[in-house]
Amino acid sequence: MRLLEERIEKDGVVLGFGVLKVDSFLNHQIDVLFLDKLAAEFAEIFSKARATKILTVEASGIALACAAARFLELPVVFAKKGSRSNVGNDVYTASSHSFTHNTDYNMEISKKYLSASDKVLIIDDFLATGGAIRALLSIVETAKARVVGIGIAIEKGFQGGGKALRDEGYNLRSLAVIESMGNDGIIFGQADR
Amino acid sequence: MRLLEERIEKDGVVLGFGVLKVDSFLNHQIDVLFLDKLAAEFAEIFSKARATKILTVEASGIALACAAARFLELPVVFAKKGSRSNVGNDVYTASSHSFTHNTDYNMEISKKYLSASDKVLIIDDFLATGGAIRALLSIVETAKARVVGIGIAIEKGFQGGGKALRDEGYNLRSLAVIESMGNDGIIFGQADR
Repeated sequence: MRLLEERIEKDGVVLGFGVLKVDSFLNHQIDVLFLDKLAAEFAEIFSKARATKILTVEASGIALACAAARFLELPVVFAKKGSRSNVGNDVYTASSHSFTHNTDYNMEISKKYLSASDKVLIIDDFLATGGAIRALLSIVETAKARVVGIGIAIEKGFQGGGKALRDEGYNLRSLAVIESMGNDGIIFGQADR
Repeated sequence: MRLLEERIEKDGVVLGFGVLKVDSFLNHQIDVLFLDKLAAEFAEIFSKARATKILTVEASGIALACAAARFLELPVVFAKKGSRSNVGNDVYTASSHSFTHNTDYNMEISKKYLSASDKVLIIDDFLATGGAIRALLSIVETAKARVVGIGIAIEKGFQGGGKALRDEGYNLRSLAVIESMGNDGIIFGQADR
């Protein structure tokens, strides 16, 4: 999606260790009207997926997932992180590793809000190695629900998580795919829109 | 706001220790179209506040803040919790205590996204003792910005945080105020809409 690539070029900040900061519009400060444009793309891409629910992870996936949910008229469920959750005892859990924060964490979703009849659309802001998405997929599998699509705003193609998921047959669609980033700037690959 | 009170009566679950769970529509599963109705109320209440930015706290404030921001056409900034934040070093910080999780935590906002010229509308899903709001207020004060309003979906009036803030002159508006809750059900007080 050219609009997103342009915004990344304009406002993204590349740090060392493969870190791209887009916290001026996506995941700290949020440009809500811009996110609506990304969400409209997701709504179009997944309009025939017949999802019953959108799943994401706190905190940075929530704004984008809710924006997409508005177009698709679906409920959102966000996985809560860490043992500090007050979700209750009757939960699905999975663990994931955050490379950004170099820590393991748990993800929890109340069993009340995900069931075997659900067709799940996963939405998240970033995909790198795919750890967070894998944890969500594990929860969906435990719930015997089905994943009908995965929508990502920014995929770091060079970290391989997206390729592995596509190879396994997931309908993963990313609005911007970064092939490399460094002193030469950001090189985008073929995005799904 | 009668619509919110009815939803709390229908879907809220009262646990011991003053805990009201509304995670079926507000802060775990999210009914996005319902949140839009709350957000439209905030937009009307604060239409003349001339805010430049909406501030909230991850994770449960984000959906509501973004919904309000869409109506008011404002950017949202959400404070990140904990030392695991990757906000960077140039941050405003404040500490708060969570009674729900019985733990202290830090809150961080990058200095890039809050400045002395900002007029801040704070939006959050819950107000109880006011700890999280106090932490945000402290950050706004440090940034020499100005708070022009505080919009809360559900205020637990019996925990006193709202009264204290109003007594100090803050333009605090809650869509539902719970005076008491227990075996007799939920008693609502006078809300601001």
